[in-house]
Amino acid sequence: MNNVAIIGGTGPQGKGLAQRLAMAGISVILGSRDAQKAQACADELIANLKEKNGTEADIMGLSMEDATKAAADLVILSVPYSGHDDTLTTLAPLLVGKTLVDIVVPLAPGNPKAVQMPEEGSVTEAAQALLGEAIPVVGALHNVSAVTLNDLSRPINCDILVCGNDLAAKKRVMALIDTMGTKAYNAGLAESARCIEALTPILIRLNISKEVPFSHAGVRICPPEGH
Amino acid sequence: MNNVAIIGGTGPQGKGLAQRLAMAGISVILGSRDAQKAQACADELIANLKEKNGTEADIMGLSMEDATKAAADLVILSVPYSGHDDTLTTLAPLLVGKTLVDIVVPLAPGNPKAVQMPEEGSVTEAAQALLGEAIPVVGALHNVSAVTLNDLSRPINCDILVCGNDLAAKKRVMALIDTMGTKAYNAGLAESARCIEALTPILIRLNISKEVPFSHAGVRICPPEGH
Repeated sequence: MNNVAIIGGTGPQGKGLAQRLAMAGISVILGSRDAQKAQACADELIANLKEKNGTEADIMGLSMEDATKAAADLVILSVPYSGHDDTLTTLAPLLVGKTLVDIVVPLAPGNPKAVQMPEEGSVTEAAQALLGEAIPVVGALHNVSAVTLNDLSRPINCDILVCGNDLAAKKRVMALIDTMGTKAYNAGLAESARCIEALTPILIRLNISKEVPFSHAGVRICPPEGH
Repeated sequence: MNNVAIIGGTGPQGKGLAQRLAMAGISVILGSRDAQKAQACADELIANLKEKNGTEADIMGLSMEDATKAAADLVILSVPYSGHDDTLTTLAPLLVGKTLVDIVVPLAPGNPKAVQMPEEGSVTEAAQALLGEAIPVVGALHNVSAVTLNDLSRPINCDILVCGNDLAAKKRVMALIDTMGTKAYNAGLAESARCIEALTPILIRLNISKEVPFSHAGVRICPPEGH
């Protein structure tokens, strides 16, 4: 795994992922509609990683199209849900031979405590339908908060549920996630994204409520006590 | 909370719950189609709790109808999904003034690694539609394995996500769950059951696979490290 592209890489989730991956020694290419903005963001993250962590990060910024082309295999899609389908339609021809990692959660407009699923059942399934079965889509990283990702002083606090119809692609994504020092689990076919994407607003609800003593909840798969 | 009825209480999930609740000092009424079978099961659980745990348990067995009538408030429904709607239709008139706690997961026939959701979106929502809004339905306890519940030598290893449209009813169920020494979280409206029920086959998949070093996975809501 020499590099990874993050489309929508200048948003909070993308920036957090970029930094975690760069800390693991992976070359990161941020893709944005505005290539200059992407490069400025890359420069900012490089400086931040140097200052906070002593990391010599390899991050660059390009247009979404050039970032996709530059990816050896994995292209992470991290755009707001409202731009999901249009972005993918634009990038589809450039994704041939690569793997799409879809991390987009279809939060309901104006209500982050609910999802509004596309008619395909989930964003992961919608992306797979849009791209066709020849381009594997892997759903992952939906349940880790941007705040957690960007707080470089702490390890990632949760596990990552990974789903998709192409087992080999899933394993490559799980290997990528492992490099960030967190645990990825194979959560089954793309259909599992109906559950996994919908977990995010449940966690957001807990974060917003005063019911939990912390503000960036995640989930962990847990064994029986004593195991 | 003086008592709780468990309909389908002679199955593995029901027996485990009955024992955990009895250990917390709650009177449990097992409801089964066969009242004699229910009473035999109650006797078995009382003896087991005495032997394993030194607990003087208050458990009795009745017909499903009599168990529902005997419940002060909470009636837990723990039947196979195939019998869910018929059982509820029978019990509906007896549930007026009480709260249904639906723990049923709609596993796909012949495939415990997938769900087959009813057209209402989830079993919890289907139950609420069937009973009408006057009888509150709370979805809970979907993700804790029967093996975990029945292994009285260990505490319950996971958190419990609770959902439903009636906040007061949800709080009563969360208080019940707290008595078992585990943590219940308010996961939002009944619609959240689309996620929570679908988590179960994901956990079953992990249990069946050799990818995890344990066999009865649950989920925990986790805070950032160091919190």
